[in-house]
Amino acid sequence: MAVTPQESVRRHNLGAVLRYVHLRGATSRAELTSRLGLNRSTIGALAAELAAAGLIQEDTPRASGRAGRPSPVVRANPTGFHAYALSVEPDHLRAARVGLGGEILDSRTTDRPPGADLSATVAVLADLVQRLRAAAPAGVLVGCGVAIAGGAGILGAGLAEALGGDQPPLIGDPAALAALAEHVRGAASGLDDVLYLHGDDGITAGIITGGHVVTGHRGFSGQVGHMIVNPAGRPCRCGSRGCWAAEVRPDEPTADSVRWLGHGVANLVNILNPEAVVFGGTLRALFHAAGDDLRAHLRATALPTSRTEPLLSVAALGEEARLIGAAELAFERVLNDPLSSA
Amino acid sequence: MAVTPQESVRRHNLGAVLRYVHLRGATSRAELTSRLGLNRSTIGALAAELAAAGLIQEDTPRASGRAGRPSPVVRANPTGFHAYALSVEPDHLRAARVGLGGEILDSRTTDRPPGADLSATVAVLADLVQRLRAAAPAGVLVGCGVAIAGGAGILGAGLAEALGGDQPPLIGDPAALAALAEHVRGAASGLDDVLYLHGDDGITAGIITGGHVVTGHRGFSGQVGHMIVNPAGRPCRCGSRGCWAAEVRPDEPTADSVRWLGHGVANLVNILNPEAVVFGGTLRALFHAAGDDLRAHLRATALPTSRTEPLLSVAALGEEARLIGAAELAFERVLNDPLSSA
Repeated sequence: MAVTPQESVRRHNLGAVLRYVHLRGATSRAELTSRLGLNRSTIGALAAELAAAGLIQEDTPRASGRAGRPSPVVRANPTGFHAYALSVEPDHLRAARVGLGGEILDSRTTDRPPGADLSATVAVLADLVQRLRAAAPAGVLVGCGVAIAGGAGILGAGLAEALGGDQPPLIGDPAALAALAEHVRGAASGLDDVLYLHGDDGITAGIITGGHVVTGHRGFSGQVGHMIVNPAGRPCRCGSRGCWAAEVRPDEPTADSVRWLGHGVANLVNILNPEAVVFGGTLRALFHAAGDDLRAHLRATALPTSRTEPLLSVAALGEEARLIGAAELAFERVLNDPLSSA
Repeated sequence: MAVTPQESVRRHNLGAVLRYVHLRGATSRAELTSRLGLNRSTIGALAAELAAAGLIQEDTPRASGRAGRPSPVVRANPTGFHAYALSVEPDHLRAARVGLGGEILDSRTTDRPPGADLSATVAVLADLVQRLRAAAPAGVLVGCGVAIAGGAGILGAGLAEALGGDQPPLIGDPAALAALAEHVRGAASGLDDVLYLHGDDGITAGIITGGHVVTGHRGFSGQVGHMIVNPAGRPCRCGSRGCWAAEVRPDEPTADSVRWLGHGVANLVNILNPEAVVFGGTLRALFHAAGDDLRAHLRATALPTSRTEPLLSVAALGEEARLIGAAELAFERVLNDPLSSA
């Protein structure tokens, strides 16, 4: 066997320490010891190894005046390791360099030329990445994540070639990546059953259940905007009638929009029983304008078992969420096996 | 540390061999070697250890006339290890003894007294289990799984006391457990994104995504029957109007029922992008009567990306599915760590 069992446990523990500080920020060794259930000397050895590889930084705070020596504080090293995160949006293309720890260190946005084909889009994205790269201090690139609706395997292949490197870019649905970002470090931080609803020219969902992103069989889950809620309703551009997004009209916060929003949220709460529902994109404004009405409608239509349960909130990460989620895709590999990338 | 790394790898491998034959049935050592990616001598040692513990049986088939020695065949030992599976249904209470490998070895059913309270229900279930136990040959009990709608933590506690033993019963939603059973050894065997729809006096769903059962935050997911599909529609006993189950009327396979069934399935396919949709309970008859119409309706209303995708089929395990799923809950522990239970 290439990997001995001891080595496998060590890698697991290195990953656990790095993941903790990546997600939670600066953490004392003492807290790591108690949170991860490892003893002090093990945490010390793991931290030393991660620091030697440039993945974390350790500082010893000044004595606080309280008894005892202060515990060294461990934090992810944002400049040592970074990921590129790309987002393909209807009117814009965005690219960001995200440091370990989740901070966006640099970003570039450009208009998306109307009618641009896939190869033109790839070329523009590759150019944005080159510009980020040219401006970046030295550091290890752990990978690239891309938020794009509707799969787009071809884009992935084209980008892999344009970007070079040995890691193909990782593709995710924008709403699913925003849900991931809100779940790991946003409005639903630490909650494992999350429904993220995103409004723009439609409504899409990112679904987290049991801590895992639901992608569906081919990555097409979350098309909640085309849930038919009113068969006698407005025509939708998909060809059906009474689709949720057609009835809600997220950019018009009327009483009718709120009623239809509540309708669909109640349906999804009954189907998925989330702990939290997070409203992003244009639905943020609708929720801000009418959160109380929405709550009342939800209370009246969802089942008694689940209707008072979900926390309702707006997204905390705004338009950055999908970029942060895309970077998380790329960080996953280094968090699972830190020293293989270092 | 109580468990050395080598021991952890060995347990993992023992579990992998046992799980394979538990789910797939009798398997030659040669097939285990290739499927699990372990070498022949490792498989031989693991099989010997599992056989010594009574978890599997090995037979050497007679020479087939082909060259070479026939590979010993490994199968789960159904009489050595068993689980109890209980099902609380509107009119009946059922209990089964299920052998390792998933076969129902014995079962008892009794009417559920109308209006019986929880403690009476617990007493009847405990009596059914006693009768199964009295009729059972010797063997190791690995645990007890219970299919009951709506959570019911109290029932779990009552049953734990009535049944004795050191393992509390594991509770699951009936549709979720039926989905699990169809996923591991039924109509959706080997598929990781499955929507199981069960009709009785309502419609409930068991949802599997990425190979995991979706329970929701409090175990209340899958209430798809109360998805509102027609706000101007029939009143539902939940107090809303136009709930899916109220419109479908699963016991009346009319054109209208089929149309509404297709409506709701299209919604769920757009939300979850499953690889397969499995129809159980009274929906089996509706699907048999009108599967082609359903397919046509689905094709017309689901999104292009997902509408032609899901395999549609009836449940393969019938009314036994929830019992088999409940037993799987109980087997999970021994499959994860075979020798701890032996």
